[in-house]
Amino acid sequence: MRKVRFRDPAGSVRTGEWTDDDELRFGEEKFDPSEVDVLPPTEPSKIVCVGLNYSAHAEETDSEIPDRPLLFLKGPNTLAAHGDTISLPEGKERVDHEAEFGVVIGEQCRNVPEDKAEEVIAGYTCVNDLSNRDDQRKEQNWIRGKAFDNAAPIGPVVADPEHVPDDAEITLTVNGEEKQHSSIDDLIFSVPELISEITKLVTLERGDVIATGTPSGVSPLSDGDTVAVTVEGVGTLEHDIVGAGEFSGDVDHRFMPNQ
Amino acid sequence: MRKVRFRDPAGSVRTGEWTDDDELRFGEEKFDPSEVDVLPPTEPSKIVCVGLNYSAHAEETDSEIPDRPLLFLKGPNTLAAHGDTISLPEGKERVDHEAEFGVVIGEQCRNVPEDKAEEVIAGYTCVNDLSNRDDQRKEQNWIRGKAFDNAAPIGPVVADPEHVPDDAEITLTVNGEEKQHSSIDDLIFSVPELISEITKLVTLERGDVIATGTPSGVSPLSDGDTVAVTVEGVGTLEHDIVGAGEFSGDVDHRFMPNQ
Repeated sequence: MRKVRFRDPAGSVRTGEWTDDDELRFGEEKFDPSEVDVLPPTEPSKIVCVGLNYSAHAEETDSEIPDRPLLFLKGPNTLAAHGDTISLPEGKERVDHEAEFGVVIGEQCRNVPEDKAEEVIAGYTCVNDLSNRDDQRKEQNWIRGKAFDNAAPIGPVVADPEHVPDDAEITLTVNGEEKQHSSIDDLIFSVPELISEITKLVTLERGDVIATGTPSGVSPLSDGDTVAVTVEGVGTLEHDIVGAGEFSGDVDHRFMPNQ
Repeated sequence: MRKVRFRDPAGSVRTGEWTDDDELRFGEEKFDPSEVDVLPPTEPSKIVCVGLNYSAHAEETDSEIPDRPLLFLKGPNTLAAHGDTISLPEGKERVDHEAEFGVVIGEQCRNVPEDKAEEVIAGYTCVNDLSNRDDQRKEQNWIRGKAFDNAAPIGPVVADPEHVPDDAEITLTVNGEEKQHSSIDDLIFSVPELISEITKLVTLERGDVIATGTPSGVSPLSDGDTVAVTVEGVGTLEHDIVGAGEFSGDVDHRFMPNQ
């Protein structure tokens, strides 16, 4: 089962199934994915992200492999969905894609031992950990760098764990050209290790997401790019990019007060 | 008006007024603060925190004053309330208090100019930015250091802006002994500057909190301490500390799955 959230043509928000025939089903109703507004498949209270969790990416960024997971946070303002058009922050020289394997938490949990981590996993998804390098380089905590609006496109579904093989491939393309390709087998810290480590100090809530780090091959995005992140067993998260503050109008929480 | 959220003796969650006579009022009902369970006065989607925003604190930590606000995030798991008993993370040598002036946001906003910042402020509160120095020192992003469960006691109220003078004093005591004392007049980056800077890249939601940084005088907490943060015009946020993993049972989201 691959769960999808979407707004149907009448405006109702539905949680349904994305079938293997690429139909969206809610009860007896069927929709084509292109005729609805696909939403982030979960509403996390936070996204806990992991840095430098593939050796080849640590190498390409001249970073040492950490002795425990490098963690950082993205708030709910960073969410974006399959099919969205994302405006990059204005005036930045380099904003990169980072394909990531996302773990969606199924129940509130704390102090989870590695051998029970499976019990708190609802399923898996695709994440693009968009990274504004101009600011990331200059700040202690990566807020401007990683926690800007819509910096975490996620989806298109939450796939049940049995849908996703232990060595699932993860791929990212820009305008159809492959940029990142690895297997979740190559994670330095495994999913159970991450859940155990995070929940030593931080309670995870139902719906929270762990973005498990990116493989090598990160590269800058430009105005007009189409990015696709595919995780075997999950499907493909696709979104468009508009650059340099060309506000797309497609992402709905850029309300400006009093204007 | 000072708004308070509390669970009344019947278990209902109420948003009422904390009067100048220290009564809690909900409609015609009156309660003594000690007979109810005071809750965090807001339910933020995120707490955006500011580091090194008082010169004297930058000096005491041997840090340079940054040329733009140093930002970091605390998620909703960090919330704790007036009257709570907070368990410090286990096995850490030093967890410090940090008294802070908290700004509560009144409406969703983005790209707020400094001269319109007042229009998006719901009111002010007290925050204790609890800081686990053992881990903070060792990590790039301060997740273990600053975003652990209950690391952000907040409250007891949201005071309307007109309640709080521009040079409001902020004080923190541990077991009645004064440790921190300053004025919000001493903030390096003012509240309008912070709102403008944050909302360049990050949408703030109604109820979100900006913790504006701590004055000098931070010091380590021990088992059994009682901490009180007072902001002139807001009131006093008081909470107890239990150390070294002596789980208090008083904070209700430390559910352990399957045990």
